[in-house]
Amino acid sequence: MDTRTSESSAGTYVCGRSLEDFLKAIENFHGWKAPGMMLGGFMVDLAQRQIGPDVEADAIVETCHCLPDAVQIFTPCTVGNGWLKILDWDKFALSLYDRRKLTGHRVSLDLEKTRAFPNLYNWYMRRVPKKDLPLEVLHKTILEAKTAVLSSRAISVTRLNTRKKKGETDICSGCGEAYPTNQGRQCTACQGDGYYEFD
Amino acid sequence: MDTRTSESSAGTYVCGRSLEDFLKAIENFHGWKAPGMMLGGFMVDLAQRQIGPDVEADAIVETCHCLPDAVQIFTPCTVGNGWLKILDWDKFALSLYDRRKLTGHRVSLDLEKTRAFPNLYNWYMRRVPKKDLPLEVLHKTILEAKTAVLSSRAISVTRLNTRKKKGETDICSGCGEAYPTNQGRQCTACQGDGYYEFD
Repeated sequence: MDTRTSESSAGTYVCGRSLEDFLKAIENFHGWKAPGMMLGGFMVDLAQRQIGPDVEADAIVETCHCLPDAVQIFTPCTVGNGWLKILDWDKFALSLYDRRKLTGHRVSLDLEKTRAFPNLYNWYMRRVPKKDLPLEVLHKTILEAKTAVLSSRAISVTRLNTRKKKGETDICSGCGEAYPTNQGRQCTACQGDGYYEFD
Repeated sequence: MDTRTSESSAGTYVCGRSLEDFLKAIENFHGWKAPGMMLGGFMVDLAQRQIGPDVEADAIVETCHCLPDAVQIFTPCTVGNGWLKILDWDKFALSLYDRRKLTGHRVSLDLEKTRAFPNLYNWYMRRVPKKDLPLEVLHKTILEAKTAVLSSRAISVTRLNTRKKKGETDICSGCGEAYPTNQGRQCTACQGDGYYEFD
């Protein structure tokens, strides 16, 4: 399959959007045009074209940085609707897969391929201080590279493919709030793992 | 402070939007008007009004269900930009707090207050089968209740308030992909915890 980003006489299309709309969507949701978001958008674009347009896909991302937002902007999968799962592995890779057949594609940043784009390699591997690699330069490199720095492979999903079900709910004797009883006799916060003190 | 949702002669405003825009934004991002999303929107609205308009706020939500999306739609905080943290506690509560002063407000669903809105109590505590509580009925109850079923308290954040920093990155000898070296001699997936098989 051709893995290049769609090109037409009207320009580059990413995730079905013009480049301008693609970049605007990133800025609106993520707050700024983070390099990881731009790369992430190209990763979603490639994964979508690999699995095809008619698949109801769930998503897994392998880092908390940037990629969750790329999936949430450019696919119907979000954290809150349960179609996106986030693994805190700090690996720059994501998978889209058919939620019934459990087959799909995993797309990752291919370090070997980034060597042809030294700015990208140096940014990702943090070989150059941030001040020596201005954002505009990095943006330009990413828009040149597009999907040329990515690899994609067909996968079968073997784990993490079930939706989280809620367990029994009861009222915590500590705080009076509803909590899942599988946490014990009180909720996690009342057991001492809270993140706040009341003022 | 008045904790009621803003009302004007033009109708209800939630998170600075007309009710129509509020509901549209939920449907666009989350895929459907989930009751938890509507409630979550009112929770964000209340938290925003408590902390005031000039605060650069980070967010913590205490469940993976719905609330992450409410925060991501109606505030600048997202999972991928690091301003939203998600605790898998299954508690229907969220906090917005000043990222420098670490003070803010925690808003939670108040079960006692939901007793005045039996549909809401029965839905959240799952006391009635889904088929006996149609979505339209639940929507109507939530729009009647608005913030009347919520409680809000001022908090100081004592944990989880630091941004995640990336550690050392190297190339995994198993898969050749970049990974954080604090995972060990190979990446998590190569150590056997992967979620996929290559086809």
